[in-house]
Amino acid sequence: MRIILDGMGGDNAPDEIVKGAAETSALIDHEICIVGDEARIIPLLETYEHDADKISVLHAPDVISGEDSPVKAVRQKKESSLVKGMEAVRNGEGDIFISAGNSGAIMSGGIFILGRIPGIDRPAIGSTYPILGRGGASLLIDSGANAECKPHNLLQFAVMGSIYAQNVLGKEKPSVGLVNMGTEPGKGSALVKDAYELLERGRESGQGLNFIGNVEARDVPIGICDVIVCDGFIGNVILKMTEGMALSISHLIRQKFTEGLIAKAGSALLYNKLGEMKKAFDYTEYGGAPVLGLKSALVKLHGSATAKAVRNGIARAVPFMENRVVNTIEDSVARFMEITGDA
Amino acid sequence: MRIILDGMGGDNAPDEIVKGAAETSALIDHEICIVGDEARIIPLLETYEHDADKISVLHAPDVISGEDSPVKAVRQKKESSLVKGMEAVRNGEGDIFISAGNSGAIMSGGIFILGRIPGIDRPAIGSTYPILGRGGASLLIDSGANAECKPHNLLQFAVMGSIYAQNVLGKEKPSVGLVNMGTEPGKGSALVKDAYELLERGRESGQGLNFIGNVEARDVPIGICDVIVCDGFIGNVILKMTEGMALSISHLIRQKFTEGLIAKAGSALLYNKLGEMKKAFDYTEYGGAPVLGLKSALVKLHGSATAKAVRNGIARAVPFMENRVVNTIEDSVARFMEITGDA
Repeated sequence: MRIILDGMGGDNAPDEIVKGAAETSALIDHEICIVGDEARIIPLLETYEHDADKISVLHAPDVISGEDSPVKAVRQKKESSLVKGMEAVRNGEGDIFISAGNSGAIMSGGIFILGRIPGIDRPAIGSTYPILGRGGASLLIDSGANAECKPHNLLQFAVMGSIYAQNVLGKEKPSVGLVNMGTEPGKGSALVKDAYELLERGRESGQGLNFIGNVEARDVPIGICDVIVCDGFIGNVILKMTEGMALSISHLIRQKFTEGLIAKAGSALLYNKLGEMKKAFDYTEYGGAPVLGLKSALVKLHGSATAKAVRNGIARAVPFMENRVVNTIEDSVARFMEITGDA
Repeated sequence: MRIILDGMGGDNAPDEIVKGAAETSALIDHEICIVGDEARIIPLLETYEHDADKISVLHAPDVISGEDSPVKAVRQKKESSLVKGMEAVRNGEGDIFISAGNSGAIMSGGIFILGRIPGIDRPAIGSTYPILGRGGASLLIDSGANAECKPHNLLQFAVMGSIYAQNVLGKEKPSVGLVNMGTEPGKGSALVKDAYELLERGRESGQGLNFIGNVEARDVPIGICDVIVCDGFIGNVILKMTEGMALSISHLIRQKFTEGLIAKAGSALLYNKLGEMKKAFDYTEYGGAPVLGLKSALVKLHGSATAKAVRNGIARAVPFMENRVVNTIEDSVARFMEITGDA
């Protein structure tokens, strides 16, 4: 199979993107095609050890930057790495597209170029949410694509998220929780109350949706369930609070642990452990958010993705393609549409 | 002035409540009236040093528990400490009601017994949100009373929150931010877009609303602004994520810092600092969430409030009463209602 990688998207492109691809090339059985300005990509690639049989370059002279208006850029910048890469996937020249570029343009391109799966009006971003200090990850879906949702969107997020969690994160019968203000049924806004009913019906339908009920945001960091379902506004708040608290607590640790000589001595002894903690807090290392609900596989990397994030993103892209997540979602949507009454 | 304190509400009532009141009695110029079962409160009070001229007891034989259905309990348990205490405030026998009891019953009692300020259809809970490691606090409003809001509710939260932040938290021209998915205007759901417009008009009206625009959840823990405005669902997620991340990171610290002898030695040297950090994470110590939009002053303490939380709650209750926050809100609402077009 063939991975199409946006060589020009993100703060560290093309250097870190090319480096990540080069490092991965010897480790996987698939081909990686880097899309971008040949004049920059090829010389860069030559500076890194790589498996030349597994890496190719598709020339795209233009770039969509972070400042570009997403919809306009996707329509007008036909020669950009993002548009050319997505077109390659749509035309069957590749099996997945990975980009650390303009998030809005990735979503717009996904919808306009790759296209939505019939029956899914709201593709969603699923972030792999690392469980601090315990290893493993949950999938947070939607993590920011849709500020406003209808109940049947949340059911679809649950179904798509379960399929991804099972096939890519390796969870058996992934447990699905709905973010709410309390765990009791009947809590929350009209949206979550109605979504709860649909998710219950989904569970009862025997189609394999393992809905465990409402979950509170307090239990998200400990990995209370495998798939965390919410609208994109709430998902954004959860991700941003995670980052903000990690930063704020790191700051507090730095402050406290350098007050006085005894504390400084203690910190010196904990040097390695503090480094490990800092790493656990570094959410940019995880990257790799699948966009689900499209006719092709698509992965959005963090804008500040490093070579390591690219490697991790590609590692997750492999089972995403190999296990035919998109086809499984297509097959499931029709069955679950009966539940939402849209069939 | 007279503080009416629910002696029977919360996990640690009546012991910790009475202890907190006793400890505060010598420190303030106001009278504290503890409502609850005389047969339990009076003997308890005698075990703690207190200023007998400043503490009285109002007998209430019944209790509303955490398991009671809020609306039903407020209607039926007429002899409960919560109902009798609120009635005392409504009848002018007290100036503020403080309770660590059933949150739903506090909100219901606030609306049914104390009553809403005309023009305010949605009273809100404002949590004092401590800024980790930097001291001080922001006010998060609404932090959970209203799962669903209209744009004019958010404007009213901003106005009420500003008045509280100025008069109780001592902020001059408190800065007000609207929680959104990004800082640019035009982001987010229809609710926040429309609320943004109203808040802008509020700022431009010259009535003293210091609206600084959208803020991201990432910046809430560092205290990006004095008043953080959002609907109650988002507010709940922010508070719960704060608790959840603090717990999760504490767990990680415990885990990392006890791996191996060197780490253990380092931790021993940092014993005091780790204790201080744990304290900074303990959100139950802060307590004291004002319920704003009612005809009388009302403070909700955390259900697990200790004597210290009671002391802190009373300390905040003093400027809440003395600075006539409720009257200032009453006066301001009429002016801001013109902005929402409800006048």
